[in-house]
Amino acid sequence: MRTIRTIQAFRTWRRQQDSRKTSLGFVPTMGALHAGHRSLIQRARETCETVVVSIFVNPLQFGPKEDYRHYPRDLIRDLKICEEERVDVVFAPQLAALFPLRFQTTVTVGVLSKRWEGESRPSHFQGVTTIVTKLLNLARPTHTFFGQKDYQQCVVIQQLVKDLELTTKIILCPTIRDTDGLALSSRNQYLTPLQRQQAKLLYQALSAGKQAIAKGKYTNKDICQTMHRVVNTHHGISVDYLVCCDAMTLEPLKQVEGKVVLLGAIRLGKVRLIDNLLVRVRH
Amino acid sequence: MRTIRTIQAFRTWRRQQDSRKTSLGFVPTMGALHAGHRSLIQRARETCETVVVSIFVNPLQFGPKEDYRHYPRDLIRDLKICEEERVDVVFAPQLAALFPLRFQTTVTVGVLSKRWEGESRPSHFQGVTTIVTKLLNLARPTHTFFGQKDYQQCVVIQQLVKDLELTTKIILCPTIRDTDGLALSSRNQYLTPLQRQQAKLLYQALSAGKQAIAKGKYTNKDICQTMHRVVNTHHGISVDYLVCCDAMTLEPLKQVEGKVVLLGAIRLGKVRLIDNLLVRVRH
Repeated sequence: MRTIRTIQAFRTWRRQQDSRKTSLGFVPTMGALHAGHRSLIQRARETCETVVVSIFVNPLQFGPKEDYRHYPRDLIRDLKICEEERVDVVFAPQLAALFPLRFQTTVTVGVLSKRWEGESRPSHFQGVTTIVTKLLNLARPTHTFFGQKDYQQCVVIQQLVKDLELTTKIILCPTIRDTDGLALSSRNQYLTPLQRQQAKLLYQALSAGKQAIAKGKYTNKDICQTMHRVVNTHHGISVDYLVCCDAMTLEPLKQVEGKVVLLGAIRLGKVRLIDNLLVRVRH
Repeated sequence: MRTIRTIQAFRTWRRQQDSRKTSLGFVPTMGALHAGHRSLIQRARETCETVVVSIFVNPLQFGPKEDYRHYPRDLIRDLKICEEERVDVVFAPQLAALFPLRFQTTVTVGVLSKRWEGESRPSHFQGVTTIVTKLLNLARPTHTFFGQKDYQQCVVIQQLVKDLELTTKIILCPTIRDTDGLALSSRNQYLTPLQRQQAKLLYQALSAGKQAIAKGKYTNKDICQTMHRVVNTHHGISVDYLVCCDAMTLEPLKQVEGKVVLLGAIRLGKVRLIDNLLVRVRH
């Protein structure tokens, strides 16, 4: 495994790949790798001849009051995991290389970025789409792997790739969960033991929504009520949103039909957790 | 010469070029080709093994009150010119192919887009940088050719390429002028005969500024006064700006030194004209 820390060296490496014309799988991460990332890397390893993982904590996608400074960083541990998963190249650039003096360009996906996560985190997706555009232009992967846990992010990036005529194929990989259902996230380590107990309620709420659909409830109101009921009885949890949307447009559905996504975000103290479930609804 | 009208066919053609590994020169245009465009194509022809010209009137870069509908279009004439200049491929996509339903992504260069042209045309550069990002991702040229006439556009695109990790080399080509100095522009055809007479004053004002520097005037105030004096005595002309700036940052200079650009924009009735001169100042 090779670790590359400068843009110039990464470009040189990438150019050398051109003549090989092989499939190149790319897993962009902010480090603090967990079993969720491992599953993305494994999927890339199965799918592509060459696998690149990027590790970069992107300041643009953190709000001014968010946890950029305290976001977990452990490059040595991350590199060990990448080595174990037979990654070919880890690209771990310095902040100043990607955002030098006078950097001033932003990439914005409009409508899809404004809803849900966009309401709670106004500049978040702009930060994501800007860094992803940069990384995709550097890595020029044939396949790029994202976790379904950040479902809205996946939809936004899919739109970005289409709108800017990028050519990579976006591969959506299943959410990896703890035994009680909590979706793995680098931010789970911020939870106190009590919060960690309560955190599973998000998945339980979404699962209750899915079950309600399976039982023949097809109005948005019914399903949302079902989801809220799971969480509302508990103290110390506040719901950002628990909604039932079209899986493509992320617009709330009146009548639940077709490809549906149940999206949720809750707050436990200062920690904000998100999760989602995809449901195919055939009446 | 081959004319390609769909994105899919263009992508296929472009992929075939990959194995040839030749230099690819790209001249993005909005059609209505004139001698200025010819000189860009000629420069591309001299520099690169393969030359692609795109012809696409980009709605995003026109303001709501601007001339998108009436912008001159004559594809058959344009194709003839490209043929004469030995272009390899003309890419002339349809509007709906580049901007399908639900298109929603914008690329914005911050500070550099806000000044000068950005003040008069608030969404103009966002439109330019969005379409240029799309076209560069489709064409993946080694060299891209722009005319110095749109100097701020060149600087903005240079920043875009750097910030988004694009790899093309931006080649700035000299402004082509009529015998009286007026910079060629597709919009010159909107001028009445009287306005056409007055239009040369923009170049004369910039030239007077350049001469003032040559004669040892190094304060911004002196140079701007000199430039304004050329235009101010004439009726029917209004000055948008006539300024003396750092050629890299486009910020106004107090003391004129180093690589300097004299930038100007005037209005003659409804027609707006821009021009500029680069000056290297050594005290």
